Amino acid sequence: MTPQTVALLGAGVVGSQVARLVLEQRDDLSARVGAPLDLVGIAVRRLDADRGFDVDPALLTTDASALIRERRPDIVVEVMGGIEPARTLILEAFENGAGVVTANKALLAEDGAALYAAAARNGSDLYYEASVAGAIPLLRPLRESLVGDRVQRVLGIVNGTTNYILTRMDESGAAFDDALAEAQALGYAEADPTADVEGYDAAAKAAIIAGLAFHSSVTLADVHREGITGVTPSDVAAARESGHVVKLLAIAERSLDGRGINVRVHPAMVPRTHPLAGVREAYNAVFVESDAAGQLMFYGRGAGGAPTASAVVGDIVAVARNRISGGHGPRESSYEALPVLPLGASTTRYYLAIDVADKAGVLEKVAHAFAEHGVSIETMRQDGHGDDATLQIVTHSAGEAHLADTVETLRGLDVVRAVASVMRVVGE
Amino acid sequence: MTPQTVALLGAGVVGSQVARLVLEQRDDLSARVGAPLDLVGIAVRRLDADRGFDVDPALLTTDASALIRERRPDIVVEVMGGIEPARTLILEAFENGAGVVTANKALLAEDGAALYAAAARNGSDLYYEASVAGAIPLLRPLRESLVGDRVQRVLGIVNGTTNYILTRMDESGAAFDDALAEAQALGYAEADPTADVEGYDAAAKAAIIAGLAFHSSVTLADVHREGITGVTPSDVAAARESGHVVKLLAIAERSLDGRGINVRVHPAMVPRTHPLAGVREAYNAVFVESDAAGQLMFYGRGAGGAPTASAVVGDIVAVARNRISGGHGPRESSYEALPVLPLGASTTRYYLAIDVADKAGVLEKVAHAFAEHGVSIETMRQDGHGDDATLQIVTHSAGEAHLADTVETLRGLDVVRAVASVMRVVGE
Repeated sequence: MTPQTVALLGAGVVGSQVARLVLEQRDDLSARVGAPLDLVGIAVRRLDADRGFDVDPALLTTDASALIRERRPDIVVEVMGGIEPARTLILEAFENGAGVVTANKALLAEDGAALYAAAARNGSDLYYEASVAGAIPLLRPLRESLVGDRVQRVLGIVNGTTNYILTRMDESGAAFDDALAEAQALGYAEADPTADVEGYDAAAKAAIIAGLAFHSSVTLADVHREGITGVTPSDVAAARESGHVVKLLAIAERSLDGRGINVRVHPAMVPRTHPLAGVREAYNAVFVESDAAGQLMFYGRGAGGAPTASAVVGDIVAVARNRISGGHGPRESSYEALPVLPLGASTTRYYLAIDVADKAGVLEKVAHAFAEHGVSIETMRQDGHGDDATLQIVTHSAGEAHLADTVETLRGLDVVRAVASVMRVVGE
Repeated sequence: MTPQTVALLGAGVVGSQVARLVLEQRDDLSARVGAPLDLVGIAVRRLDADRGFDVDPALLTTDASALIRERRPDIVVEVMGGIEPARTLILEAFENGAGVVTANKALLAEDGAALYAAAARNGSDLYYEASVAGAIPLLRPLRESLVGDRVQRVLGIVNGTTNYILTRMDESGAAFDDALAEAQALGYAEADPTADVEGYDAAAKAAIIAGLAFHSSVTLADVHREGITGVTPSDVAAARESGHVVKLLAIAERSLDGRGINVRVHPAMVPRTHPLAGVREAYNAVFVESDAAGQLMFYGRGAGGAPTASAVVGDIVAVARNRISGGHGPRESSYEALPVLPLGASTTRYYLAIDVADKAGVLEKVAHAFAEHGVSIETMRQDGHGDDATLQIVTHSAGEAHLADTVETLRGLDVVRAVASVMRVVGE
């Protein structure tokens, strides 16, 4: 059999593990592909960096574009990250007839449609399992296994850093800053944690998931995004007391009328009985609800060099098998072309903690504020007395816009000292 | 685009749901396939049976073989179950150039290698996601996503009937017979529950999983099988007291020396902290450990008409896409050709409850029986006094053969009244 040649763009945390697996497991992978799988070049930023594994220096180059043009590899693996030069190099790879494997969620969330189109135009494959939830097989199930079903909703814990921080806050009552510092000390969070804690990373993944699940085009700009920096120990304690746990969720769901989709990332209270509640530390999990299959969950490591490399190498084998069989993998379909609806159009249950004053008629005035905006109260509980009194309220499912109006009205009431906490409740 | 034609063999619980999905979602499926997907015939046992859905009577026939030969469908979907005539019809389908989708675990576990070979010989596809764990995408992840990784172990709860029964025994302390009767009343267990409660169903699935995970040929006859009829309320109570829960597990794992695999189905105590412990009622889940990806879990509905049909229709779309792109799906590889080792070669931790007599030197004699066979004790606890005394012992990992010898020695001791319970402990 003609060997399948592989060029690797990037040799960082993921790339070096991909190189290690491809070199160490060459015989196994070749047996599984049905032809030798040869690593023919690695594009790196610096030739003399320490990569923590042995590699023939002759494979290394700093000119990624020349590697693609001159070696004409069958498969180009892009694990550099970032928008450019990754995008240009992937398009060059397609023009040269190569199949592409990438882990680049930022690029796919910004410009996926252009890449999918370029792959189709050139009769090539584009695989990107590693871009969402690391080692967890999620995109292949969505693209292929569930393709005969109708997905209604996807709820994902897709960022390990924030899940680690929220787990620590839940277990020890720590404040966000302390839990973040601990995550940084353990290497779970970066020195600049913005992409994780502000939800950008999860939002990019939500865009990719939503596009696949609902056969529509979704970009990062479409995703409503709230991070976890505003989650307080009292939010976490209130969740625990009411049988919930706070998680940063990536949510993609069909609207009730089926004419659009809601795609958003925000912290939410999840019931402790929900399968996602038990996903702790830096683990990821994605919960899928579809018409025929019902509830499914996929669980595992969402980040790290080796787990992510496992997904990348699985994709390399898939592309190689397709090239040998003369076919190609599934094409992204956006035939449903559902619009992403504004946040105000989505509905969810809410938890509110309201600090109230020591005055007559408090409950009546608060209840009226909810009723006035059509928000129905499911449970109400009063803690404390006098000027320490707090109302904890959980609503029935309500529109984002109606809830926002309710909060504004509450803040204007003389009996309300502060709306201390507002959090969505997801997963009943 | 030329339509892809589909013939359905069988219209029972699963088949009727497949027909419904293919007919109801024809436009969606055609958009996802990239060509019309047409159901051209349904082979049934009786033309006048009530199927609970509307279908053009002209599609029905009692002659499955003629349907394949005369209509020459692109895709044959076998959901009749049983060994014959399913096997002969699938082979006919391949000879006629069709791709095949099946949910037939019994046939695959008995004669999968012959079917895989027939598919390869005819350049056709054979997909069978629905044969294991119903709607849960498991085989595709094993065949494709994890193909770049090295799987060490698969632990599965793959039979919903037994998981329902064990859940009831755990929650209510019910005896096996009562929990079974309840499962039968609710439709979770059949009138003759042998295939489920004796572990035959799980063993067939274990064989399929083991073959894929370890690139080897494994049949039902290779699988050591123990059912749950011997699980007593005191086993379940002992599990609960020690922080475990009893589950019927399908286990496939590489031996410690890597030269073979252990494949077995038996009840086991699983720590409550393990992700599998939370899998309740009729749900299924499969836990996979691999070198690079680490721990993964797949969770969902393992049975039922609609969930199983979701997996079947996903496979129909995959075969249709492959035919249109001119390629074919992955071929089963058995290049590792690992032998299935006898049960005595596998190792695991054990829980034992030993009723002991009111005599001096009990602990010493019991401890000696373990030491004599090289079985190391991790914890020992004595409950009760005099002739009611029971020893609860958990061992370190030990060989099946050594443990069996230990139990035999224990039974011969004058200080031992009975070895009341022996159960494997899995998942630490």
